[in-house]
Amino acid sequence: MQITPISKAFFDRLADAAAAAIMPHFRTALAVENKLEGAFDPVTVADKAGEVAMRELITATYPDHGILGEEFGNAGLDREQVWVLDPVDGTRSFIAGIPLWGTLIGLRAGGRATQGMMAQPFTGERFYGDGATALYSGPGGERRLRTRPCGDISEATLFTTSLRPFGDADRAAYLSVERQAKLVRYSADCYAYCMVAAGQVDLVIEAGLQPYDITALIPVIEGAGGVVTSWTGGSAVDGGRVVASGDRRLHEQVLKLLALGASETSGFIPTSRG
Amino acid sequence: MQITPISKAFFDRLADAAAAAIMPHFRTALAVENKLEGAFDPVTVADKAGEVAMRELITATYPDHGILGEEFGNAGLDREQVWVLDPVDGTRSFIAGIPLWGTLIGLRAGGRATQGMMAQPFTGERFYGDGATALYSGPGGERRLRTRPCGDISEATLFTTSLRPFGDADRAAYLSVERQAKLVRYSADCYAYCMVAAGQVDLVIEAGLQPYDITALIPVIEGAGGVVTSWTGGSAVDGGRVVASGDRRLHEQVLKLLALGASETSGFIPTSRG
Repeated sequence: MQITPISKAFFDRLADAAAAAIMPHFRTALAVENKLEGAFDPVTVADKAGEVAMRELITATYPDHGILGEEFGNAGLDREQVWVLDPVDGTRSFIAGIPLWGTLIGLRAGGRATQGMMAQPFTGERFYGDGATALYSGPGGERRLRTRPCGDISEATLFTTSLRPFGDADRAAYLSVERQAKLVRYSADCYAYCMVAAGQVDLVIEAGLQPYDITALIPVIEGAGGVVTSWTGGSAVDGGRVVASGDRRLHEQVLKLLALGASETSGFIPTSRG
Repeated sequence: MQITPISKAFFDRLADAAAAAIMPHFRTALAVENKLEGAFDPVTVADKAGEVAMRELITATYPDHGILGEEFGNAGLDREQVWVLDPVDGTRSFIAGIPLWGTLIGLRAGGRATQGMMAQPFTGERFYGDGATALYSGPGGERRLRTRPCGDISEATLFTTSLRPFGDADRAAYLSVERQAKLVRYSADCYAYCMVAAGQVDLVIEAGLQPYDITALIPVIEGAGGVVTSWTGGSAVDGGRVVASGDRRLHEQVLKLLALGASETSGFIPTSRG
């Protein structure tokens, strides 16, 4: 069964609609001289407004598609093509005024993530992929996205957003990998995956993800030459424990290290890493 | 003794010169199709080029001023006015392609930080202050920077860059504060201080800072209505252990909590916080 891809232009329209709904709520302290203190939760309002805007456009244009969204639940998940939406991925960054959050627009067909976009409206950057190719647009113009080679964990720049969602065993397994990495950084959410696609970062390891946290990013990284799977090498499309690598050799090494780390009986290892 | 302030326009000229020297080395994976892999360390090259550019402009314009720089050491630290420069604060962010690094341009007179600027050339943002007022310029235009009220740690958004530079006792004291905060985030370097000035974040607590990591940021936060001191309430101008708060009530509470945390004999407390 052949599924017709959706044009990148439609992803851009969705990102435009989401940005128009979300941006009035970002950095309200800077944008408005006399804001209403505590009158609302800006990130929740932004999340809902962004999702409504995207749902309206999808329903009007592709009424036979399903939608899985963070804020308004699911509709038609049994349809051939299902949109997977997270209007504001990285709510902590959003709240703190840090431009590392993004609007995630994914498309799933036949159980696979087939197309996806991450849009960061403050920096004006978009990362788009269809599994075969991946494109960047931003202040510096348009570029092909390509991951970089990295054959060993000792040479790798590793990102994770936070160890909070990790259970003790997963945290121990993760830390057994982190200790071997060349450079480690926290708190970048979807932006970290895009930096893997851009060839700036080698590896992201996370746990406790929702489907809408990862679906849009899979075709971007795959299109740039990288790999995204679960910690055990299966599909990452349902979230949970996810590894994304720019180089397949690194990916296979990390899956082995995670399995080894999980099988060790060391339990929880305290970390001094911020 | 009256010291004549330097114009904000000269800080802008320094930031322009640094950006022109630094930006060719940021995101080289995206900027250049066929980069020379491993031929050089982009952040070191960028740091040095940025500092050379700023030193040349300062020496030509204010030959009687001193300079304290990260890359090329110190000259004339006994002068009345001393520039304190960090061309790329946040080298991990820079390396990973994350636009949270910044060029820090500080001016010290009579042992005090009197004027300062943080410039982020990728986002086009500048945060400037002279201790009395503070200004933002960026994609949304120009604004006054003002910190926001926050009277208690339980309501505070807290940032720190990393726990790596903390000794065990300082880490325990820090964590005794972190546990009480409403929201905690890591890895933002100078950008976190600017978000305090912008009223998006309430508190930054760090240790192991160099003078060039903090001098430029003090007049920005003070000009926006906030407070920056050492953990014991003294001047932060020499770096070390630093607290920056948007609200003086919060600042005084946090200094007490840090002193209390340091005096407890609990020693190292493992954290699961990313």
